[in-house]
Amino acid sequence: SSAPDPIPATLFPGDGIGPEIAEAVKQIFQAAEVPIEWEEHYVGDQIDPRTQSFLTWESLESVRRNKVGLKGPMATPIGKGHRSLNLTLRKELNLYANVRPCYSLPGYKTRYDNVNLITIRENTEGEYSGLEHQVVRGVVESLKIITRQASLRVAEYAFHYAKIHGRERVSAIHKANIMQKTDGLFLKCCREVAEKYPEITYEEVVIDNCCMMLVKNPALFDVLVMPNLYGDIISDLCAGLVGGLGLTPSCNIGEGGIALAEAVHGSAPDIAGKNLANPTALLLSAVTMLRHLELYDKAERIQNAILTTIAEGKYRTADLGGSSSTTDFTKAICGHL
Amino acid sequence: SSAPDPIPATLFPGDGIGPEIAEAVKQIFQAAEVPIEWEEHYVGDQIDPRTQSFLTWESLESVRRNKVGLKGPMATPIGKGHRSLNLTLRKELNLYANVRPCYSLPGYKTRYDNVNLITIRENTEGEYSGLEHQVVRGVVESLKIITRQASLRVAEYAFHYAKIHGRERVSAIHKANIMQKTDGLFLKCCREVAEKYPEITYEEVVIDNCCMMLVKNPALFDVLVMPNLYGDIISDLCAGLVGGLGLTPSCNIGEGGIALAEAVHGSAPDIAGKNLANPTALLLSAVTMLRHLELYDKAERIQNAILTTIAEGKYRTADLGGSSSTTDFTKAICGHL
Ligand SMILES: CC(C)[C@H](C(=O)O)[C@@H](O)C(=O)O
Ligand SMILES: CC(C)[C@H](C(=O)O)[C@@H](O)C(=O)O
Repeated sequence: SSAPDPIPATLFPGDGIGPEIAEAVKQIFQAAEVPIEWEEHYVGDQIDPRTQSFLTWESLESVRRNKVGLKGPMATPIGKGHRSLNLTLRKELNLYANVRPCYSLPGYKTRYDNVNLITIRENTEGEYSGLEHQVVRGVVESLKIITRQASLRVAEYAFHYAKIHGRERVSAIHKANIMQKTDGLFLKCCREVAEKYPEITYEEVVIDNCCMMLVKNPALFDVLVMPNLYGDIISDLCAGLVGGLGLTPSCNIGEGGIALAEAVHGSAPDIAGKNLANPTALLLSAVTMLRHLELYDKAERIQNAILTTIAEGKYRTADLGGSSSTTDFTKAICGHL
Repeated sequence: SSAPDPIPATLFPGDGIGPEIAEAVKQIFQAAEVPIEWEEHYVGDQIDPRTQSFLTWESLESVRRNKVGLKGPMATPIGKGHRSLNLTLRKELNLYANVRPCYSLPGYKTRYDNVNLITIRENTEGEYSGLEHQVVRGVVESLKIITRQASLRVAEYAFHYAKIHGRERVSAIHKANIMQKTDGLFLKCCREVAEKYPEITYEEVVIDNCCMMLVKNPALFDVLVMPNLYGDIISDLCAGLVGGLGLTPSCNIGEGGIALAEAVHGSAPDIAGKNLANPTALLLSAVTMLRHLELYDKAERIQNAILTTIAEGKYRTADLGGSSSTTDFTKAICGHL
């Protein structure tokens, strides 16, 4: 008998607490016998002329080759004229959709029960165009760009996601009553795609109203798809409903089938190296990566072990009100596999 | 002895449930002997060439002359090429700051206790410029405009408001990590104004993080000031924390000292004329108008009567889970004056 060929995947442990939480993922994957072979890449300490950023050429090549990766928090080195590493990755790898599942963790109480939402954010354009200028002194403008191509692409992804995950409804979030042309085009694209998925309910919700409904009753929503900035805002709002960015996974989908899962919280330099960090967001992100690879059994098993450990409450890190170390929490998860 | 000269104020009852909830305000003001003389104006049924909208010239003149007004919900007549009535009012009266107090109503339970926030929204520019165009087929852009003048003006208002209301902290909400020029200018203006108010704590919070913090712990904030679209989003989010737009007041501040208070909820045509509408948002908005007129005693008395009526719970309209009519709820408030 022979083990399956290991699947190569890129790992960016990142900065601050990144290496510790990445270590947790590696251990749990090993304990669960996940057939993944990590290619580890760190952010460089100088600008790589080929990427024009602190990201190394090799690391980007690794993601392009493997098509799957996992990324810890990356603090952009201080200095002028560098784009954030996160934005550079999105651009270089054309990560067009950011998928953020957001669900209540059993046993971890917040003000909301039974949250179960997916926000899907267009990740390449909109308010993030970087096009800004001063018109005259004291008058500045930023351009929000919406294209048919990117809107169709993210809408396609959202409906496809809804379909393969058995979700019933897709809500397009917008402000087309004000931005009739840009958000109007976004909605037009969503409607076109919606017609191809008659089994999925499609609705359009204005962003201000959406935020009010989310805080009143998040069960009103299922899958939400939206332009870049609205996705930035709503995905964090949703994370807040279930406990914050330390508990919520994220996965970026790129052209050519790339999936780069990532923990979207910060690098927490104050607790770095102290064995205090909570690896949950990175672990659950790694689980989304496994699902992308259709390793559903491994994904379920690991997710259950994480959720069971948190639900039992015996081993919790300080951010969740416990006093466990990262390594004890990790061991507890391995014990539940 | 002679009564004080009545103060003239403009009243736009508005559409749908507007006239019924405006009637509640009139009755309660009369019962509380508020020295206000209403000048009532309705939206016209055709375009007034002098305002180029369904708003009549006389109604705008009335607000300009009185400098105070109260506005119910106004549905923009269906048709092409008309700007929303709300936007027209903002533009014509130069209503540069939208102030939205948001506090928990004693006895009306939501997921949040003791919310006590003020959002102050720049109300004239930003993403609401109306400047949009198609670049090429499938590529559209919208312009977000930020000016030093409008940013300073709303920042001044926010700090002034914080000071006269004994508030301790002003948070400027932004996305200047992405929109460095536009939101950067907004922050620069806030910082300049903050320096003149050393007794007030000033901080800057990125909008996505702000939304997450608001749903986790709204007590982290006090007064929030921000560009137009963020204000649109966050003020509705905050309203959701305490029960929704049916319960939260709003007041628009314009050049030359104009204050136009308004209920920001919709006109609810489905229940119009049925004596079912909840007048709370319009009533509490009318209270903010009284405070603007420095009629503090009347404002307190009416606000207390409203809050007591809701807290007792005996008379509540259907939206709050009760079965009272608008008129019975109104009578109950009068009984508590
Ligand atoms: C750090 C920042 C540039 C980034 C964004 O705005 O996209 C972050 O908020 C996120 O959501 O990943
Ligand atoms: C109706 C709409 C144009 C308006 C806005 O976006 O400002 C509304 O949401 C508000 O907040 O008053």
